[in-house]
Amino acid sequence: MESHKKQECAAEIDQSRRKLLVGGGVLAAGAALAHFGGMVNSAHALGCATEKWPWPYVKLDPAATAEIAYNEWYRVFCGAAVINSVFGQLREKVGAPYDTFPADAFVFLEGGQVGWGTICGSPAGANIVANCIIGPRIAGDAAGHHIAEEIMQWYSEASMPVFTPKSPRISDELIKTTADSPLCHVSVGKWMKAANKPIGSAERKDRCARVAASTAYRLVELLNDWKDGKYKPKATHAAVRDFGITAQMNCMECHSGNVPTPPMAAKK
Amino acid sequence: MESHKKQECAAEIDQSRRKLLVGGGVLAAGAALAHFGGMVNSAHALGCATEKWPWPYVKLDPAATAEIAYNEWYRVFCGAAVINSVFGQLREKVGAPYDTFPADAFVFLEGGQVGWGTICGSPAGANIVANCIIGPRIAGDAAGHHIAEEIMQWYSEASMPVFTPKSPRISDELIKTTADSPLCHVSVGKWMKAANKPIGSAERKDRCARVAASTAYRLVELLNDWKDGKYKPKATHAAVRDFGITAQMNCMECHSGNVPTPPMAAKK
Repeated sequence: MESHKKQECAAEIDQSRRKLLVGGGVLAAGAALAHFGGMVNSAHALGCATEKWPWPYVKLDPAATAEIAYNEWYRVFCGAAVINSVFGQLREKVGAPYDTFPADAFVFLEGGQVGWGTICGSPAGANIVANCIIGPRIAGDAAGHHIAEEIMQWYSEASMPVFTPKSPRISDELIKTTADSPLCHVSVGKWMKAANKPIGSAERKDRCARVAASTAYRLVELLNDWKDGKYKPKATHAAVRDFGITAQMNCMECHSGNVPTPPMAAKK
Repeated sequence: MESHKKQECAAEIDQSRRKLLVGGGVLAAGAALAHFGGMVNSAHALGCATEKWPWPYVKLDPAATAEIAYNEWYRVFCGAAVINSVFGQLREKVGAPYDTFPADAFVFLEGGQVGWGTICGSPAGANIVANCIIGPRIAGDAAGHHIAEEIMQWYSEASMPVFTPKSPRISDELIKTTADSPLCHVSVGKWMKAANKPIGSAERKDRCARVAASTAYRLVELLNDWKDGKYKPKATHAAVRDFGITAQMNCMECHSGNVPTPPMAAKK
């Protein structure tokens, strides 16, 4: 992730500031939020019974959650599988407000949103779970926002799939690839190339089911830390701060040798 | 959108089949679904009170909804603004199940998910709304899936922002750009370049607020057609069918001259 060279991005990166901030995730994240949109009031303009945060959370077993996500993938695909793997257990253990969240509606997250290859449904689902439980940053606790940042970075850097279910539908070992991106198109494309398997193959499907399981596992680890009061933001990628635009970290992978420079604010 | 040349993508596109299907959206979409993951049973493994579809919907005024989305952007940013612009009105007019949906939790959709520049929060929010109201395709009615496909394509092709609010915070006329992508990074980047405005500028913020408003307007038009029984799928982009991978339509924009060929299933 940090291997991109300085010249890869034409945005005016203040490298010394970046190095300083990389060591201090909380400060870095706070600075990024302030730069991007600013903190706003949490006054509810519309009001909703489930918009009181945090939602009650009991710690879950990461491996058991991953097994649920793996199996749910074959019913509702990546995004809804991750959501159901957590919310399904909490419906049983806690009840409200989990019993009114329409998790199955999120099947459309499949294929990077109805097959468009944008964000992989697994991190998209994980981000929903973290932010429904902890609440949005505008409600006062930015931990859900930070967990989403961390899920995006972890997903991009992980050798995927990380998790192997107890009784996988594909018994052969699956090749692992690193996406360097949270995008479905990039993630599944690199895996398909390495594995030489088409999108419709049983192996590709099982790979994606395991990616959902891996993401659910990591999500529950982070939520359990948060529940224990031990969660500390660790994501270092903050594109608006570093590049002056919302972005992933490896500009050259899409831009080749011609990375545009975004208009920047005047130096004060 | 259709201007990409045949040689832009190395996937084995069956052009004659594509042309045939472009004229018949329903058939095309059905074929794409079958190719990507297949239809699955809608049996609820976990069960939830709000997972009975469709949710009760009353037709809304597109312009009034867009005005709400525009103003909500300044409180909760793009994704939650689109969700609240529709669900906020339906909480008032209908009540349950809209009164238990935690729309404000979706602030994290900002900046293409916590600033990573993946899917723009406006179509991400619209896709959530359509699929919560109509239900996932696995529950029997694929209209929510098709509306999401159409929102993605419409967003990519539109000269944005389409909608101008009655009392905009920026009184100067804003430049319009076509993203050719549903990605935040690409959409906001092209606009910033054309307008020569940085990400933190008041103009960029108002542009994004108007993009949310424009998307809410289009979403309500589609939902009203669906409510009237007049909705017919019109999206023509089906990447898995045409390219053998989840993707947007203009491969060359990121891949330059070196578009990889995904592994394809053997011809039968």
